[in-house]
Amino acid sequence: MSKLEHATNRPLEAANLKQVSIEDPFWTPRVRNVTDTVVPYQWQALNDEIPGAEPSHTVENFRIAAGEAEGEYYGMVFQDSDLGKWLETVGFVLAGGRDPELERIADEVIDLLERAQQPDGYLNTYYQVKEPGQRWTNLRDNHELYCAGHLMEAAVAYYEATGKRKFLDVMCRYADYIGEVFGAEPGKKRGYDGHPEIELALVKLARATGEQKYMELSKFFVDERGQRPHFFEIEAQERNEQPLPGRRQKRMGHDYFQAHLPVREQKTAEGHSVRAVYLYSAMADLAAAYKDETLMEACKTLWKDVVARKMYVTGGIGSQEYGERFTVPFDLPNDRAYAETCASIGLVFWAQRMLQIEKNREYADVMELALYNGVLSGISLDGKSYFYVNPLEVWPDTADFRHDMSTVKVTRQPWFGCACCPPNIARLIASLGSYIYSVDASRSSLYVHLFIGGTMETQLNGATVKWTQRSNYPWDGRITMSVALEQPSAFDASIRIPGWCRKATVKVNGESVDASRLANGYLVLSRTWTDGDTVELELDMPVDVVRAHPNVRENAGKAALQRGPIVYCFEEADNGPNLRDLVLPANAQFEVTYDEALLGGVCTISTTGTRTELPDGENMSLYTTRRYERVPAPVTAIPYYAWSNRTPGEMTVWIRVE
Amino acid sequence: MSKLEHATNRPLEAANLKQVSIEDPFWTPRVRNVTDTVVPYQWQALNDEIPGAEPSHTVENFRIAAGEAEGEYYGMVFQDSDLGKWLETVGFVLAGGRDPELERIADEVIDLLERAQQPDGYLNTYYQVKEPGQRWTNLRDNHELYCAGHLMEAAVAYYEATGKRKFLDVMCRYADYIGEVFGAEPGKKRGYDGHPEIELALVKLARATGEQKYMELSKFFVDERGQRPHFFEIEAQERNEQPLPGRRQKRMGHDYFQAHLPVREQKTAEGHSVRAVYLYSAMADLAAAYKDETLMEACKTLWKDVVARKMYVTGGIGSQEYGERFTVPFDLPNDRAYAETCASIGLVFWAQRMLQIEKNREYADVMELALYNGVLSGISLDGKSYFYVNPLEVWPDTADFRHDMSTVKVTRQPWFGCACCPPNIARLIASLGSYIYSVDASRSSLYVHLFIGGTMETQLNGATVKWTQRSNYPWDGRITMSVALEQPSAFDASIRIPGWCRKATVKVNGESVDASRLANGYLVLSRTWTDGDTVELELDMPVDVVRAHPNVRENAGKAALQRGPIVYCFEEADNGPNLRDLVLPANAQFEVTYDEALLGGVCTISTTGTRTELPDGENMSLYTTRRYERVPAPVTAIPYYAWSNRTPGEMTVWIRVE
Repeated sequence: MSKLEHATNRPLEAANLKQVSIEDPFWTPRVRNVTDTVVPYQWQALNDEIPGAEPSHTVENFRIAAGEAEGEYYGMVFQDSDLGKWLETVGFVLAGGRDPELERIADEVIDLLERAQQPDGYLNTYYQVKEPGQRWTNLRDNHELYCAGHLMEAAVAYYEATGKRKFLDVMCRYADYIGEVFGAEPGKKRGYDGHPEIELALVKLARATGEQKYMELSKFFVDERGQRPHFFEIEAQERNEQPLPGRRQKRMGHDYFQAHLPVREQKTAEGHSVRAVYLYSAMADLAAAYKDETLMEACKTLWKDVVARKMYVTGGIGSQEYGERFTVPFDLPNDRAYAETCASIGLVFWAQRMLQIEKNREYADVMELALYNGVLSGISLDGKSYFYVNPLEVWPDTADFRHDMSTVKVTRQPWFGCACCPPNIARLIASLGSYIYSVDASRSSLYVHLFIGGTMETQLNGATVKWTQRSNYPWDGRITMSVALEQPSAFDASIRIPGWCRKATVKVNGESVDASRLANGYLVLSRTWTDGDTVELELDMPVDVVRAHPNVRENAGKAALQRGPIVYCFEEADNGPNLRDLVLPANAQFEVTYDEALLGGVCTISTTGTRTELPDGENMSLYTTRRYERVPAPVTAIPYYAWSNRTPGEMTVWIRVE
Repeated sequence: MSKLEHATNRPLEAANLKQVSIEDPFWTPRVRNVTDTVVPYQWQALNDEIPGAEPSHTVENFRIAAGEAEGEYYGMVFQDSDLGKWLETVGFVLAGGRDPELERIADEVIDLLERAQQPDGYLNTYYQVKEPGQRWTNLRDNHELYCAGHLMEAAVAYYEATGKRKFLDVMCRYADYIGEVFGAEPGKKRGYDGHPEIELALVKLARATGEQKYMELSKFFVDERGQRPHFFEIEAQERNEQPLPGRRQKRMGHDYFQAHLPVREQKTAEGHSVRAVYLYSAMADLAAAYKDETLMEACKTLWKDVVARKMYVTGGIGSQEYGERFTVPFDLPNDRAYAETCASIGLVFWAQRMLQIEKNREYADVMELALYNGVLSGISLDGKSYFYVNPLEVWPDTADFRHDMSTVKVTRQPWFGCACCPPNIARLIASLGSYIYSVDASRSSLYVHLFIGGTMETQLNGATVKWTQRSNYPWDGRITMSVALEQPSAFDASIRIPGWCRKATVKVNGESVDASRLANGYLVLSRTWTDGDTVELELDMPVDVVRAHPNVRENAGKAALQRGPIVYCFEEADNGPNLRDLVLPANAQFEVTYDEALLGGVCTISTTGTRTELPDGENMSLYTTRRYERVPAPVTAIPYYAWSNRTPGEMTVWIRVE
């Protein structure tokens, strides 16, 4: 195989983690929390050292596979991926600053991985321990390539942070073996995994190693998906599997796996939402790498279907527990939202990739929305408990009782048997630095996508540029940027003016510039920059009353409040019970207050609405022809991401409006 | 055992079917439909003669049990009850007029029942054919006494209509045998059925035969329910059954069977809604028969819990598919309503019994509400298809897709594998005559509960009274009643002024009487009546805008339209798609139009509301800060019971109001 051709072919290249340092009042505590608390906590979890949490057994599975411990495999079939996500997080953490003790732990477990790897390169504890001899017999269900993918991503991150090759080599050996098993060539399996993941991981592996063969293997998996004769049917026949019962067939058909059609023919987002966005991420990667316009067109069509018909206002995706999946357009129930944390994370992945291909703030807007809302709600403020499912409305007594809300939890849980989300959110936060900036392919333009304080150091037109941001974002729209340069240098700084912002003022060195003419949502500052130059950005950040498309029936007559990138919610703790009874006036005047002591420091939004005056409580009839009197009621909203960090109670994002 | 003491001890006694003939523009076609179409159709269904319908096998099971056919048992464990309900319907039909051909068929199948009966009196085809030797080993799940109960009810109805004793004797033998097996005496099982039914059937059997022992056996079953040690636990241990998994335990615990507490300690309606109202019906029967005040108090407490916290505006009950059950107070989702037809039927049974014990229109109001709405929606206008589940809102694309709406059907089905509802609705309509009138215990007062045209003939103060009603109810509130007497006679006529009616005028022989002073909702006309006397009742019947208790969160900001006893709904066929988008003005002016050609003849309700003007269709974003323009939209409602008789589409009972 040749060396990697056209490294990415993308117009933009996201900053790598080593270029970016974060120093930000909002994010620094969260990044530190991941570094100082989540990473050690999850390591304990992977080693079953958390009292009261569901066991993980992840590391032990590798010990058993390596022949260094006795026992049975335990855990989900994709338990290996938890270690992959943790190691990837460690890699991201180390990119920001080496840590000998953490590296020692990581190196030890990497050594274990190497010892567990089979001579031919295969590495999967489920099949090695529980079903030896059965590898590659159930790609549809058993996440074999998925686990490989997460370990590959981890190996790339660890290599890029530390320069140590062992883990990368282990995973290259595995990838090489996979390439021997799968492919279009005669004698190889024309298969792919039920859960996309290896596709995007192979792209990373190709970039890290410069090996074109990994890109080709990724392309094979993506191209093969959904082709006829159908691989999942062939392997099911080979397993002598009985057809699924009718109902399950209907709900967990090929579309569940995004394998109902060849990917270029897929026009709507279907099936399991996490799988979908992982696949679409790889499709975007490959569309760019191969300049494949039909693949890019498919990505854009799917993107539009998601963001215009199937996405919660929080950037959550997945409307139904059964199948953890997309359903039908505009079906976005709030109280039965699935909106898995991992799905919002995957949406961030996808959005970031789309953004590098097409300089368009629409992708950055969704990336920011999902990050600050649908993702961040998945983790408690103390970093120790997690939501798998992120509802947009909860009535505790109903959610606790109803069978069709059985996945809706009123409080975050310490760890899950199916622990996909906690390590996923950790790795996203740990790699946050790579989402803030890009540099264009000609290395003459810096793109600022997110307003996160800290520094980006890069080469632009041959000069070393250090770009610094300072702000109290997302609570304040005033962002100060400054440039450090050894000597004056001409380059473009393209700064995203968010879609939510209807009025932005920009000053360069104190002088106003015209911020009304944007290139796909970016303000391009083309000038010769001098050391110490400043850009002051002021994004008008009023309280927005957001309404849903009339076809979103759950939100008819309702609105959500958003300020800047932050979507708000109403909690019982602030507003008393029965949030459905609250109504905001048509032209509510909102008061925004920053409360340092509340929920780690948040802006609250207050106004006066109305609520029903209950006449005689207990003796009220269930139905009546009288109109209830309504009385003024103070109403306070908090950021959605911060809900369920106080006394458990009702919560709603959408509130009735006159 | 002694003969029946205190036949019922009820202040009122409902008319028996032979006393009442129905001649009513609304009901006569429905009764005829049952007689002429449903009864023959269901007989074919029970004999598996309906092409395309799910098989029933009911009669065949009896043939196999009688040793007259070869084969396996097929069907639900309670398949026998379908024959019971059909035979009971036949009894009700024959009470209104003998029919030699129908009796020949019934007599033949009764002969078959007798031949299938075992020498000790036992009669249950499931255990006789499928699990011989295992009888009484799983009362909790297997509906053994439930099936017995339905056959007993049928035997009573058939005996009362025809005077033929064979079926009654068969069931008395079975009841006697059951009395040998179950009871508080040493050596007997202290058990009861998982599905209450035999309790109310034994009361009927006691009344029909005059045998106190059947009343005692019913009382035993009711008193024993929920006692500790718990019978279901004891028999589960005897079966060496593993405990249910946690979740199922939680949802299908003893409360599912209304056996979580002794019945007198039950303060809230829990569990499977059909089972609940069947049990409560028997409790009401026994409370009256034994003058048991604690039992009556329990009935009233449960009644209040149902009608004030757990009943749909249509008289439907049961808020969740899983467990077909009540959930938590005010949890009444419209699109996931279970509201099983059988549950509304059971609510009619219970309401009618409460009404005979306590002369209070509240019970008659609910009885009427359930009858005209929650029950009647279960059957198509042509009588050939049925809803098992009666949602109050349907979006076809969502309901067809979502797993948590899998029981919600957009169109009625021809027959069900679990065919409880179709024969149940048939027997209710066939016995409608027994719900219209009562006579008080002293036989000096006639009660008119429902406004259904036809005649009631009874003895009052020794005179034969023929009371006739004529009206175009429920479309028109003007009801004319007239009396036929051989000679003048003094008695009271107590006429219900419905709770929904805020203004009633009454004339006797053309002269106004004061209709404002009511006794528990009944206007008591005490006078000496003469042949040809008339009572003209005019019930004001405006369109009522009904609102739900603010805790019913699904209905916040919405209203339902009701006119007289008829609850209305909005269908896509009249209003176009996206019914959630429609908004009625706060003070809507309604136009009521009787349309003879529509849906078998209905009053429609029309007004002008508003709907969103969609700016640019396909390209609309999912979320926006702009307010959509609203434009006037004509809105038309039809009776809820008549929905889904045209092109399938959206439907909603609750509509947004300003």
